[in-house]
Parts: sequence; C-alpha cells; structure tokens
Amino acid sequence: MRVGVVGASGYAGAEVVRHLLRHPRVALSYLAADTMAGRELPDVYPHLRGLCSLPLEAYSVERAAAAAELVLVALPAGRSGQVAAELLERGLRVIDLSGDYRLPADVYEGWYGKPAPPAAPVPPVYGLPEVFGEFLAGARLVANPGCYPTAALLALAPALEAGLSDSDGLVVDAKSGVSGAGRAASLETHFSEVNENCRAYKVGRHQHTPEIEAVLAAVAGRPLVISFTPHLIPMTRGILVTAYAQLKPGVNAPAVLRAYELFYQGRPFVRLLPEGHWPQTKAVLGSNYCDLALHVDSRTGRLVALAAIDNLVKGAAGQAVQNLNLMAGWPEDEGLQQVPLYP
Amino acid sequence: MRVGVVGASGYAGAEVVRHLLRHPRVALSYLAADTMAGRELPDVYPHLRGLCSLPLEAYSVERAAAAAELVLVALPAGRSGQVAAELLERGLRVIDLSGDYRLPADVYEGWYGKPAPPAAPVPPVYGLPEVFGEFLAGARLVANPGCYPTAALLALAPALEAGLSDSDGLVVDAKSGVSGAGRAASLETHFSEVNENCRAYKVGRHQHTPEIEAVLAAVAGRPLVISFTPHLIPMTRGILVTAYAQLKPGVNAPAVLRAYELFYQGRPFVRLLPEGHWPQTKAVLGSNYCDLALHVDSRTGRLVALAAIDNLVKGAAGQAVQNLNLMAGWPEDEGLQQVPLYP
Amino acid sequence: MRVGVVGASGYAGAEVVRHLLRHPRVALSYLAADTMAGRELPDVYPHLRGLCSLPLEAYSVERAAAAAELVLVALPAGRSGQVAAELLERGLRVIDLSGDYRLPADVYEGWYGKPAPPAAPVPPVYGLPEVFGEFLAGARLVANPGCYPTAALLALAPALEAGLSDSDGLVVDAKSGVSGAGRAASLETHFSEVNENCRAYKVGRHQHTPEIEAVLAAVAGRPLVISFTPHLIPMTRGILVTAYAQLKPGVNAPAVLRAYELFYQGRPFVRLLPEGHWPQTKAVLGSNYCDLALHVDSRTGRLVALAAIDNLVKGAAGQAVQNLNLMAGWPEDEGLQQVPLYP
Amino acid sequence: MRVGVVGASGYAGAEVVRHLLRHPRVALSYLAADTMAGRELPDVYPHLRGLCSLPLEAYSVERAAAAAELVLVALPAGRSGQVAAELLERGLRVIDLSGDYRLPADVYEGWYGKPAPPAAPVPPVYGLPEVFGEFLAGARLVANPGCYPTAALLALAPALEAGLSDSDGLVVDAKSGVSGAGRAASLETHFSEVNENCRAYKVGRHQHTPEIEAVLAAVAGRPLVISFTPHLIPMTRGILVTAYAQLKPGVNAPAVLRAYELFYQGRPFVRLLPEGHWPQTKAVLGSNYCDLALHVDSRTGRLVALAAIDNLVKGAAGQAVQNLNLMAGWPEDEGLQQVPLYP
Repeated sequence: MRVGVVGASGYAGAEVVRHLLRHPRVALSYLAADTMAGRELPDVYPHLRGLCSLPLEAYSVERAAAAAELVLVALPAGRSGQVAAELLERGLRVIDLSGDYRLPADVYEGWYGKPAPPAAPVPPVYGLPEVFGEFLAGARLVANPGCYPTAALLALAPALEAGLSDSDGLVVDAKSGVSGAGRAASLETHFSEVNENCRAYKVGRHQHTPEIEAVLAAVAGRPLVISFTPHLIPMTRGILVTAYAQLKPGVNAPAVLRAYELFYQGRPFVRLLPEGHWPQTKAVLGSNYCDLALHVDSRTGRLVALAAIDNLVKGAAGQAVQNLNLMAGWPEDEGLQQVPLYP
Repeated sequence: MRVGVVGASGYAGAEVVRHLLRHPRVALSYLAADTMAGRELPDVYPHLRGLCSLPLEAYSVERAAAAAELVLVALPAGRSGQVAAELLERGLRVIDLSGDYRLPADVYEGWYGKPAPPAAPVPPVYGLPEVFGEFLAGARLVANPGCYPTAALLALAPALEAGLSDSDGLVVDAKSGVSGAGRAASLETHFSEVNENCRAYKVGRHQHTPEIEAVLAAVAGRPLVISFTPHLIPMTRGILVTAYAQLKPGVNAPAVLRAYELFYQGRPFVRLLPEGHWPQTKAVLGSNYCDLALHVDSRTGRLVALAAIDNLVKGAAGQAVQNLNLMAGWPEDEGLQQVPLYP
Repeated sequence: MRVGVVGASGYAGAEVVRHLLRHPRVALSYLAADTMAGRELPDVYPHLRGLCSLPLEAYSVERAAAAAELVLVALPAGRSGQVAAELLERGLRVIDLSGDYRLPADVYEGWYGKPAPPAAPVPPVYGLPEVFGEFLAGARLVANPGCYPTAALLALAPALEAGLSDSDGLVVDAKSGVSGAGRAASLETHFSEVNENCRAYKVGRHQHTPEIEAVLAAVAGRPLVISFTPHLIPMTRGILVTAYAQLKPGVNAPAVLRAYELFYQGRPFVRLLPEGHWPQTKAVLGSNYCDLALHVDSRTGRLVALAAIDNLVKGAAGQAVQNLNLMAGWPEDEGLQQVPLYP
Repeated sequence: MRVGVVGASGYAGAEVVRHLLRHPRVALSYLAADTMAGRELPDVYPHLRGLCSLPLEAYSVERAAAAAELVLVALPAGRSGQVAAELLERGLRVIDLSGDYRLPADVYEGWYGKPAPPAAPVPPVYGLPEVFGEFLAGARLVANPGCYPTAALLALAPALEAGLSDSDGLVVDAKSGVSGAGRAASLETHFSEVNENCRAYKVGRHQHTPEIEAVLAAVAGRPLVISFTPHLIPMTRGILVTAYAQLKPGVNAPAVLRAYELFYQGRPFVRLLPEGHWPQTKAVLGSNYCDLALHVDSRTGRLVALAAIDNLVKGAAGQAVQNLNLMAGWPEDEGLQQVPLYP
C-alpha cells in the first residue's frame, strides 16, 4: 500500500516515518511538512541519514492524492483536521493524529479554545484498538487517540466496563516525557528549565480531559468526570499514568484481575504484569507496548491502576500504524515488532 | 552551640554538614559515620574538600557526649532510634532524621516490617514547624519528618484543619528524585535503570503512609486513610506532591485560598504561589522552601494541592536545621537563607 | 543457526538477546548467566516480557554444546576467555565480547592487572569488520572490540592507513554513557552521583588504550602511542570520540575526505556526514551505525575526527551480530536494520 | 556599594542577582533587562519569589547612573559592549560579562563575525583573578572571562608560565552543560534533542579559541595556537576541560605539581586535588570553585590537566563577583562562600 505522511517533520510524524520505513506491506510514497518543506529529511532528522530519500514537500492535496492511498496526518490541532477533510474528499483514507476529530465540536471548542474543524465528510472512528478494534476494518477516517488518553483508558476501561467502580472520584495523575510537547522550541521545553525539574501544567484544564471522560463514559454506560493532572518530568519519551478509582463494595483483587485479563485477552500490545511488578516507561521504550499493573487497596477500597507507554509509539505513531494494519486487514502487529530498548 | 552529626556520610547527613558549616550560631564539633568511619570527609564527599577538617569517627556515645550539646542522627531506621535514645540518656538533645520516632510502635512494626526501637526516654515532638512549631522550643527529642510527609502535609493540612474537605478519598501522588533513596548502591538507583524512566514503587504500602495519615487525622480531628503512591523520576533532588481532596459542598476557591494564607501567615519557608503559577522542584533546589499552589475544580468539586520541596533540604536536613533553630530559640531561618539554585 | 548467549543478564548480553530475537536466520537456543541463573529473563529484564521463554541457565559447557553451534560470550574479563576456550575445544564457534582475546598476554596483564586467560586453541580474529572484515568468514574465534576502540579506530584508521598523519601526538578524548560500566551497582553508577556530573576516569591507564594502539599501529605500519582519556557523562547509551591527529605537511581537507570515503566505501554501518554536520550519539541510538565527521584545521595543521556510536550496539552487541553475519556468510546487516530511535 | 545588573533576565544575570542578594557589602540597586523589561523578577525566575522586589526595568543609562556606582553587564555580545561604554562614560565602573572587551577588534571581528564594539574609554582588564589579580584593584572596566577560557586557562596557565611545555600541539577538549547557551529557546537547547545526547559544535571555530590563545601566549611569552573543541552534554551546569600539552624533555610529575602549587598558592577558589582524584563538575556545583588535577603520562611525555567549574559561577557570575570584590578592595571570597550542592 502506498502511504503518505503529512507533518513528517514533527516528532510524531518522524516516528511514523521510522515505523513505515520498515513496514513489510507499506511503501512510503509521500512526505509533506510545513515549516521544513524543501529540506532534506536527514538534514532535519539526523538519524534518518541514508535511510529515506523522499523529499519533504510542501503539502498539496493533489500531490498527496496522486502519491498515496492512505495518509497519516500529524499536524497541529486546527490545521490537521482541515487537511484530513480535504484528503477524505479526494477519496483517500486518513488517520489523523491530532485532536481534531476526537471530540464533539462544542466540547472541542471549550477545551481547545479555538474553532472546531469542519465536520468530517465521514464519521471518525476513535482509534484505540483495544477498545474499538472492531470498528476499524471499514474505517475511512480514524481519529488517533492522544498520548495521555491512550494510557489512561487502557488503565481504567476494563474496570469501568465491568462495572467494578462506581465512576465517581476518578483521579488520573500522569507523568510525561518532554517529547509530548513536540519539537517546537520554547522556554517550557528548554533543557535547562526541564532537567532536574518536575512540575504540573494545565491543572484541571488539559484538553485531553474530555477525551478520557468521553470514552470512559461510553464503556461505563453513564456520564462521569475525572480529575486529570498532567506532569512534565525530565525524560524524553514515556508516559506513566497512575489512576485511582473507588471500587464498589465487595469487589476484590481477583475479580479486578479477571476483568482485565478478559478485556485484554488476545491483544498483542498490552502486557499485564504479574504481581509485585510495576510498569516502568523504560520497559516499553521505542515499542508499541502498554505495560499495566493493578493494586487493590483494601484499606481504602480503591483500585490503583498503572500504565506505561512510549508516548510517541503507543501514544502516537505506533498506535497509528496499529490502526493502519487493522484498517487494511493485516495482522495487528505488522511492522510493530521492535523489542523495547533497554536500558 | 556545639553540634554533632551521626550518619554524616549519607546524603541527609552530608546536607546537614553543608548547612551547619555556614550556620552563624553553630560550631560543628563531631562527625560520626558507620561504613565510612576513619576516612577523610573530602574523600567521601568531594564538594567538601577544603571546607571541613573534622574526621569521620566511628560512633561512640561517650565521644558524642563529650563533643556536642545537640546531635542530629541520620542513620537508617532501626539503628537511628537506638543511637538517639542513648544520646538522650546522656542528657543531649537530639534531632532524629529517621522514621524511628514518628509512629506508635505497633504502627511502626506493621509498616516498617521490623521491631520498633526502644521507647524514647522523652516524648518526641514531630518536627514539622509549620504545624507543630509551638512545641519545639522546649523539645529534647525531635522526630524530623519524612520527605514525602513534609510535602504532603504542607499541601493538605490547611484544608483539613479548616474543615474544608470531608477527608474521604484523599489521594497523595508523589514524584521524587533518586537521592531520597540514599547513597547505597543498588539496581534501583543505578543510573542506567533510572535515567529516562518513571515508575511507581511500594504502591499501597510505603512506610510514609501512616505518618501522613496520623498528622492529617490530628489536624482534621478524626481518623482517615489516604491513597499514597510514590514514584521515582529521573532527577537527583526534589519532590512534587499532587494531592487530591474532595471539598465539602459550597467550598469555593477564595475560601480555600484564605485558609492556606491564614495557615502559613508568617512562616518564612512556605511560598504560596499566585494564580497561574504551579510549583516546580527546580525553583526550590538547594533551599528550604516549599512552593505551594492550589486548584479548586468546580467540575469535580475537588481541591488539587501541589507542593514542591527539595527532599534533602526541607524534606530532611534543612528542616532539621529549622527545628534546631526553634529548639534553640533562634530565628527560624538562621543558616537557611540560601537562594535556590536555578537553573 | 542455533545460537547461544553466555552472560545474558549483563547489558551487552541482553542487547545480544534483543538483536537475536528478531534475527531472521538465528534461533536463539541457549541462555546462561552467572548471578541471575535460575531466574526468568523478564523478571531480570522487564522489556523482554512476553518475548523470550528461554530460561536463564547456570552455564555448563555440555548444555551449551548440545544447544548451540555458535556462542556469544559476554562475561567479565578473566572469566569470559575461560568459557570461550572451553567452547572452542568442544568445536563450537565463539564470539567473545570481553577483552580477553584482544591483546597479547603480557600487554593484557600489564593493563588489566590480572593473569591473562589461557591461550585460545585457535587464533582470534579482531572483529572490527570495517578493518578486518576479510578475515571473519572463516573465523572460529572472534574477539569483539571494546566500545571505545570501536569508535576511536573508526575515527582514525583511515587517516593512518593512508599515511596522512605522522602518528605522533595522537589524542583520543572519549565521552561515554554509563551503560558501558555494566549493570553491577556501584557508587560510580549511582544515579545521584552521575546525573548532572561529568568526570574523567582511569586517566592514562584505561585498558582500552593498548587495544587502540595495536590496531592503529597495524594500519599505520609502525608502533605508536596515544593519549586516551575516557569520560563519564550523564546519559545511558552512546560514545562520542573526538580524536586529534597532526597531519603531514601539505595534506588538505579534500585528501582527508577522499581517504575516508575510500576506506568506508560499501560499508553499511559507517555514515560519513556531509560538511557542516557533526556526529551526535542520539542519531545512532539503538542502531549499529557509526556516524563520522572530519575537520581539517589549517591553523593547527591538525585533523579532528569525530565518531558517534551506541556503545551497546556498534560498541558491543550489534557489532557481535555483524561479526556473526560475516562468520556465517550472511549479508552483513542481517538483523541489524533497526532505524535509530530519535529523539 | 550600590550595584546594578543589566541583562538580569539571562542565566548569567540571574546568577549575579542570586549572589548579590546575599553579598554582605552590596546593595542591589538596579535591574535592567531587554525582552523581559516590565515583568516582575519572580514571574521570570520562580526561584526568586519573595527574595527580590526590584522591578526589571528597560535599560537607561540615566537610571543606571542614578541608581548604581558599579554595573555588571550581562547582555549578548555586540550589545553588551555598547552599554558598558556608555556607563563608563558616565563615570561608573563596569564588569562586562560578554566577549566584547576580551579581544583586539580585528580578532574579535574574525571570530565573532560581527563588528567589534566601540573602543572602551578605558583599557579593559581581563578578569581572571588567578592570573591577573594584581591589575583588578584599580580597574574601571573588567572584561569577565568566558566560561571555557576560565577552565582552560586555569588548567594550562601554570604549565606554560613555568615553561614546562613547548606550547606546540596544545589540545583543549571541553564538555559543557547546556546553560552556557543561555536561556533563549532553540532546537539546540530543546530538552528532547539534548537529553541522552552528546555532540561537538563549532569545531575549530568557537569564538573562545583566540581568548584562550591570547592569555596562554601572554603567560608563555610567545605566540601559540590550540585545538579547541567544545561539546554539549546532557546536563544543565558545569564545564569539564581536558587539556593536553606536550612536556619538555625531562619534566616530571613532581616538577609539574610544584609549578601548579606555587601558581595557586593562596588562591581561595582553586582546589588542586590529591593524586588519584579527578575533578567532577558536581563537586563544584553552585560554587565558585575550580577543581584541578594533573596527570603526567610518561608513555607519551604529555601532561593531561583537568579542570571542573560551574559555568554560571566561576565561569560567569561568581567570577564577576570575585572581580567586584577585588575592584572594591574587599576579601576575594566575600559573598562567595556557598558550599557546593552535592549530590
């Protein structure tokens, strides 16, 4: 399949390129970028020297439509949806890595603080394969989940779907590496400001909050709100989510474990850790895995669910490739079999 | 005042030395260590070369009693309390930086998994000056708080004391630098294992849990339990605590802010940040400050309180010096006026 | 081919495992370890959970001989050579990742400060394919180069072979990540001691010095000495070597560039960067590449050659797989086509 | 003494503020900044909250002259010299932390690639107290040395002054933390690009090269050139210089040691480490120390001299305060007695 990437000079876009260069069923056929258009890819990303001879073009819908059957769009929110809509209208299939098609327009505008993109010409499928995998085969537009929602949802969805928690008082406390903020230079991503530092940001108002809430509400079967606090920690890649949920009376550890095992049965990328092991971001580095562990605390009647992902892989590019595989009817893990890099 | 340090070769002990070398009212008169006894201090801690000519002695109660009026003990739990008790019996005043005198014996044994130290010959005062400052002037034995409890208590105590939260469903999610684990070499503190990594540990069973609960219960006036999850993040110093508390109906942001302002009025080391600013560990690095900020979330009815400290200063050695000052009747910030190191 | 790994629980051994698990022509058939024998591999290395079901056995020559045709030995110097000799005597082919068969016995003993291992039953080939590739096809014992020598030799060998430098006054200044020190816990690898720190070690007496000198002397055709200074910097993986060589009068930049281009023509893993680009360790992370750049300084008449590798890949496990490929007559880059991980 | 800082919002300027806030003989009386003018200092630098109530003014020579007797100027090269000249003409004394008055105009223009600033109305003194301390007492304009030159010169000056090296073939290989690049956001200082990365930059053309050469030539008594390679490593603060110099025949280790001991006798900030110890940047963190060690290599006839400093303290702000003390006739270490922060 001829596949294109628009927004190839951002971190998520470059990760898509890294994956597709080694994908056995994909021919990478089109690369577009905004600010970096016209430059050679290896001059922008030194790790790709000698590995990719495609030029970084300025985006044009005609060129994209001529070169590719399916396009992954990894542009900033606002712009990404516009490009996705254009490509869909030309008959291409699209995976959009931005937040543009993950929320209803009114919710989007409230949390993103900008106008929602035009309604997509086809209904988007939310591309979290472990929850919505059955809807991906026929999808023409996939909204690839955010990095925080991916980890938070994999941590909490089984408990809520199984009705083990009463869905009040959910807390999602997330710790993220800096690459999630993208490649644009800013004081917030300056090495000297981030290194040896830990801080929260957008407390109570991060735009991934309603995305998490909407999917949890869908699996729980009723509306809910969460407290979500993202934190920046001094590492490049990785997200660890620590999620807290009040369990219903009488729900014990074996029942919780059983619900998670059932939920993730046959899913190649979720590794439920044995007792006594806790997820760590380094154990999934560079891979599409999500490592999960559960603690049922009898003192507080609470479930603590921990999930670790590589924010640029399972949290972005790897999940997009996983969605691509499912859209194309290929094995879910095609091109995604890299062993994590440790240490 | 002639002051000694037992356990001077650990990180907390070395930080006590750093502070006391520049304290205008203290003569550092005695240094003892266990494994490092007999070595020159600068051969163990290169930053102290040229700054301290005291030998690192093997501990003896006689030598300590001859050399010092007050001793700070920074040994591992179990051993620290024994030394503290001995010194007290010789008439010295003691600040114990371990957990040995912070909990009732039965609670201690349940969480620490070892026998409690002998009962102290005098009742210990819990040395969190912002909460128990009034009891320190006459104290002979001060139990210096743990690093996590310091940050967690400063984040939550005002809300609970003022009765703003109903004390159910408290969550304390903490992120710590690696120096909190001490200087002993282990796989858990190996650079290659910690760097570019984030993980939780001792989920639901960290020994600081009952210490936090006991003090919060004391200020709230009723028993309570918390969910406490400590995380290790790739930095050397610093703790950020993100604490979540359900607010009572009708409690709004101004009421919360007022309670905290009142609570910390006149306290030199707590900096309540203005709206729109969040604590970061780098802003307190090397200093005794605790930076605090509050978010009242009307969607969830919840308070999110964030606190940042340097775990080796306000979370250990600096707080011990603050306690020393109060025990001696000196200004609270004597010898603690270092400007944080940034970046 | 059935291949075994002895010393699979060290960092180099685990990297061999990572590579061989995805090698299309290799069946990983035997894993042995010393201190970790008897444990499950994923309990020792969490990134391998679900990826490898072989047990970590205590090493036995019989088991190894029964299970494998070729064995990679990644044990500490001293022990590694003994195991290699045993396996050779049983008719297996061996790649030894230690320093045991890289030096003449007397030189070894002088620099390693311990007895040399028994003479190998067959002559070892020094496994730097870009220099000695032609000797690998028939080799039964390959001495896999050290991490520093790999980077230093790739930086300097072409200039010396081409007679462009007079070989006096060579300086090799190397900066290494911490994983090169292995997984054993020590104060030297403690996160809090290494993070935010830079220091040299073993100045003038690192055991890789004679290894670099011997190979450079071989390509230059005369004896020589170098100044080699290794440094530890706060990162996990990567070596950057900055090498300085006085050029013979009249040697200019184009002549130098030509010599390097010629030397590395057709070698898949050396990337000679275009002018204006300098190697960086991040651009080769997780891959078998060596990125190289050259500066001819007309003010000083000196060549500055810079080389970046991943110390655990091109500096250890990846190079071992490259050697394995050449020993077996397979394409040099089989199983080594991972794209570097960036950022 | 009333002292002002122009360029207070850069890292060097903020470090000057940190030092002067606690300096017993200085009243910080004027702060100016360019891009940050009009903002509150604690909103720009969170560590200073509660510690400094001076506004960040837009620079005006009148305001500066009214408010201060001496001004430290820490603006970018090009702009800094202009401000320094203006202030001098108004009769103030000036310490210029930029490179504007460290080089002859023609050399400056060749290496900085921009027009030299106007000639200073008074001759500048190069403010490296350990070399030119005697000239500082009467100085009206001090050119504060660059961070790399400070470490390189302290490493090599004694050997060259004593005539122990023949001054050919000098190599200065420097490793620096990222804060040396200032606070401006750029791809080069982006956390995700710098973390887990090591690279050289400006190879053979860094503007500090002629500054090092000029001072070494002055102490050696003849012209010389050096090979200088700066490297960026993933830490915030600190420079380690590894310098290589060919020794004259017959010069041995005791002779070298004696020369250095003599040179630094009575200098409070240079710590010559005993044999077997190597400088590390962490041992000087936050302090004005320079830690030095020497290796005389009999195999190569070469001296390897290693120096560690905190680039923002001894490499910038601390050295400026040291110069201020000497200009004012105060003890050299007034306000500079902070114990380094370790770990």
